[in-house]
Amino acid sequence: MNNTGIIILAAGNSSRLGTAKQLLHYQGQTLLLHIVQEALSCHPAAVIVVVGAEAQAIAETLADRDVSICYNADWSTGMASSIRKGMTQLIAENSMVTNCIVTVSDQPHLSGQNFSQLDKLQSKTGKGIVASTYAGTIGVPVLFTHPYFELLLSLQGDQGAKKIVGQHLDDLATVGFEQGAIDIDTPEDMIHLSQKLVTVSEAQAIIRKYATHDYISCKSLTDVNGYVLAESIVSTCDIPNFRQSSMDGYAIRYADRMDTLEIVGEMRAGRQARVTLTFGQAVRVFTGAPLPEGADTVVMQEKVFREDDKLTIKDDQLTIGMHVRQKGSEAQQGALALGAGHLLTPAAIGFLGGIGCQEVLVYDGPTVGIIVTGDELQELGKSLNFGQVYESNSLQLRAALQQAGIKKVQRYHAPDDPKKLEAVLTAALQDCDLILLVGGVSVGDYDFVVQTAVAQSVVPHFHQVKQKPGKPLFFGTKGKQLVFGLPGNPSSALTCFYLYVLPALDQMMQRPESLLTKTAITTADYYKNTGLTHFIKAYIDDEGRVLPLQAQESYRLQSYAHANCLLVLQEESPGVQAGEEVQIILLP
Amino acid sequence: MNNTGIIILAAGNSSRLGTAKQLLHYQGQTLLLHIVQEALSCHPAAVIVVVGAEAQAIAETLADRDVSICYNADWSTGMASSIRKGMTQLIAENSMVTNCIVTVSDQPHLSGQNFSQLDKLQSKTGKGIVASTYAGTIGVPVLFTHPYFELLLSLQGDQGAKKIVGQHLDDLATVGFEQGAIDIDTPEDMIHLSQKLVTVSEAQAIIRKYATHDYISCKSLTDVNGYVLAESIVSTCDIPNFRQSSMDGYAIRYADRMDTLEIVGEMRAGRQARVTLTFGQAVRVFTGAPLPEGADTVVMQEKVFREDDKLTIKDDQLTIGMHVRQKGSEAQQGALALGAGHLLTPAAIGFLGGIGCQEVLVYDGPTVGIIVTGDELQELGKSLNFGQVYESNSLQLRAALQQAGIKKVQRYHAPDDPKKLEAVLTAALQDCDLILLVGGVSVGDYDFVVQTAVAQSVVPHFHQVKQKPGKPLFFGTKGKQLVFGLPGNPSSALTCFYLYVLPALDQMMQRPESLLTKTAITTADYYKNTGLTHFIKAYIDDEGRVLPLQAQESYRLQSYAHANCLLVLQEESPGVQAGEEVQIILLP
Repeated sequence: MNNTGIIILAAGNSSRLGTAKQLLHYQGQTLLLHIVQEALSCHPAAVIVVVGAEAQAIAETLADRDVSICYNADWSTGMASSIRKGMTQLIAENSMVTNCIVTVSDQPHLSGQNFSQLDKLQSKTGKGIVASTYAGTIGVPVLFTHPYFELLLSLQGDQGAKKIVGQHLDDLATVGFEQGAIDIDTPEDMIHLSQKLVTVSEAQAIIRKYATHDYISCKSLTDVNGYVLAESIVSTCDIPNFRQSSMDGYAIRYADRMDTLEIVGEMRAGRQARVTLTFGQAVRVFTGAPLPEGADTVVMQEKVFREDDKLTIKDDQLTIGMHVRQKGSEAQQGALALGAGHLLTPAAIGFLGGIGCQEVLVYDGPTVGIIVTGDELQELGKSLNFGQVYESNSLQLRAALQQAGIKKVQRYHAPDDPKKLEAVLTAALQDCDLILLVGGVSVGDYDFVVQTAVAQSVVPHFHQVKQKPGKPLFFGTKGKQLVFGLPGNPSSALTCFYLYVLPALDQMMQRPESLLTKTAITTADYYKNTGLTHFIKAYIDDEGRVLPLQAQESYRLQSYAHANCLLVLQEESPGVQAGEEVQIILLP
Repeated sequence: MNNTGIIILAAGNSSRLGTAKQLLHYQGQTLLLHIVQEALSCHPAAVIVVVGAEAQAIAETLADRDVSICYNADWSTGMASSIRKGMTQLIAENSMVTNCIVTVSDQPHLSGQNFSQLDKLQSKTGKGIVASTYAGTIGVPVLFTHPYFELLLSLQGDQGAKKIVGQHLDDLATVGFEQGAIDIDTPEDMIHLSQKLVTVSEAQAIIRKYATHDYISCKSLTDVNGYVLAESIVSTCDIPNFRQSSMDGYAIRYADRMDTLEIVGEMRAGRQARVTLTFGQAVRVFTGAPLPEGADTVVMQEKVFREDDKLTIKDDQLTIGMHVRQKGSEAQQGALALGAGHLLTPAAIGFLGGIGCQEVLVYDGPTVGIIVTGDELQELGKSLNFGQVYESNSLQLRAALQQAGIKKVQRYHAPDDPKKLEAVLTAALQDCDLILLVGGVSVGDYDFVVQTAVAQSVVPHFHQVKQKPGKPLFFGTKGKQLVFGLPGNPSSALTCFYLYVLPALDQMMQRPESLLTKTAITTADYYKNTGLTHFIKAYIDDEGRVLPLQAQESYRLQSYAHANCLLVLQEESPGVQAGEEVQIILLP
């Protein structure tokens, strides 16, 4: 498509949506960026993005993309001014361009294929205009050949390219693009869009895109076990900062080893007096003690014969420098001690302490808010009334967060009342970096958690995953805040935590993945319908045999309490028979 | 030996030792119990233990053993009274006995073989007396045949059996028992005894004997992640305590499923109003809501046709009771919910919360004291003077303890001064259940940590293990308190922590072992001397290939900071070559 330019109209102000639709997120990126990428994938002569309302914010999202940003100050006068501006810039940048595709920025299902089909059909038919059709109408993207450029440059007010198409139907070819009818005008459009079932791996990929690791804190070395270094540490001194004996024995000059030596002193660890030794002399030394000036070697006490102050050495294997720790042998002043990204194990912490390090920058964990919803929930310690159940989700999620090294956790409770939930969510969004909304995400008449989140400007990325349990999982973001809507059934909530929240935490804290997968042999049959990935509570024994447990119902935790792994059966699997190999996820 | 009785003299008061020597521990049990077990292993006619001083405490240690306890109230008049009492009881219990072996309770190296050798030599030689010889003298154990019983019963004051032997040298045979010369009279004797090198598995077995799990605490469910239940939990109510819908749909009577039903109400989760339904009626229900009285089945909302208040069901697969969670289906009132010994995972905690449990008894972790010793240690944040090193051992051990779930940790520092160390250790023994003494356990002239511990009535069990690094490891107990003396070199200290302290903590808290071992293929050669088990800092990659790291010196932590496993080479191994299979311990 090297003679075709693409103009993307992105100057409107999305009045019905309440937020710039160009910045809405779809499958892990902004809608506009999605369209830009699809355009660039066709290798056109140029991609022009015409911006107006919120121009700067939109332009920033396109930094590093090979597009021309064209600012239309008159965007509020209607679409014609944006088409004119875009055409002018396209021709100015690329005078050889013979075709121009005009498109908009609110069709989430637009792909590169749509552009290339227009181009191919133009070549094949020789028609001057090639347009897309959907829902019984003609629309964008639409391709105009060179003869129409003047007409495009003369459009006025809120006239669109559609006017030109209507006047030249005999020079028109069309391509079907049914999904073009789906555009984004209201928040509900976004919810419906994100309600599309995603697969488990799609859901995980989307979360990975948004889990940022810029929560960096300076912490004392006493407080960083299990964290990852966010800076490189350079040693500020030589360690050890003196030559040190590594044995209990005698410091000597290696050259004197055959002589009878005179013991002239003693050096032990922690004594700061300096001792000097000259030829024919030895000094009694203990492990960790500084070597006397003049000495170069230590003989073990087991390898000498001592009588009063006289010392004779009986050591065939003695070499020069033996049993001496050289200055700087553990760490050299100015040298890299540990690099950014290093996991702080007890040994790494001891090492850093040993070189005098007191505090370090680490990738910190987010502050997590747990919002449990539901009028049926009763607090522990009170008796159950008719229709009530004990609220146990926050307990198990707190424990799982604690196990994941998250120290800042706040719990909120919201009744089944949109106004009250809204207030609780507003508070949580002020205090927390990551929010777990528990319950109210399925599609019953009284589930309004997702709507409330979207009304609070949480951008939905998906709602529903092709899995069991945990199908109603919701995921959205607000800035760099992550919002998970977990199903209210305890078993589903915990499985979604392990599969989605825990990997997000690992990524935020830049540490190795907490979940390990392996293969095992199942000891019982398990059958399922195809279509959803199943995560089955199971127990793996020391011999690697895995037993799917009874009581898999998602409202129950009894089998989960006995499980140490999840057995994974993929979407297309009809189940397994005893003796077959299966994939399992070991619970942390 | 069914005609021979054994009399063990254990009535003395161990004046030089300061504590009852019969209660001293040797290789994981009291010295007296060791001798009793050796005696029983020969299947003699009877074993008589004569007690006097501290009779009750000593007798308690022998409960359940097949011995007769004989109390000698006159023990302070000398050994003769104990021999007389023992002989009298032996004859009274077993009139057929023809031989009697007399022995004492302070020979740690005595074994069953010593007794059986005496018996065999008597049969072979026909001599009336068979005695042990060591260090140029004749001593116990000594066997007397029936003709000597009268003489034994007539001994007086502090006369011992040796007097009779001396008067009948012509009727004497002797058996060599050189180690019989080693007995326990002073605290130093105990240290020397425990300085014997033990193997890694012997050391681990000894520690296992003393790591008690009676630190039981009652904790809130919010605080028990990773602990193990020390009680069985019985459900106090049915959960759920009402019949509950598991779907959004309509509650009906199954018998009415073919009819057009009238929708007469709605039930949602958390509403306590009771609704009743009769034939021809349906009630709209949501997930978690109570089922109306009279209903027995829920139809999913996807499987009905609704027009105003009229409902028609389109569900071929409907069965009676479908989508209904029965009362008590998760937990039944009075039934066992989780047994003692259950590991409290997040799911188990959620399950217990769900049945209304608020707090539980768990095996708690001990309060741990870390005592770092050494005049050369400098605090972090201060600059290093000549001869000083930063104190990093407490940092890495704190981190390792934190990782092991230990919440109560106190740090102490003691200079190289026996009096000051004694004061610190006294304080730590008052506050802590498990003490890590770091440094000062090797054999240099200024290492007095072990002596100080023994002077504080810490019973030594071993001192030195056949391993590298970490050979000078010390282990002792005071009552149920555990005292580990870790080497001061940071790398040795941490390896000893993982190999010995962590398994002790696991056992005290009754949880699964923290250390996992597996086999791997080494990617580099590593050679060693035979005689010691080596634990080599190493890195295992995702493909199971393990690389021994550079810088294994025990004063260094740099390689440990990069290690994720320890490669184990047994005592007799000369090393490994690249490509060979090795055993590794995964670091937690």
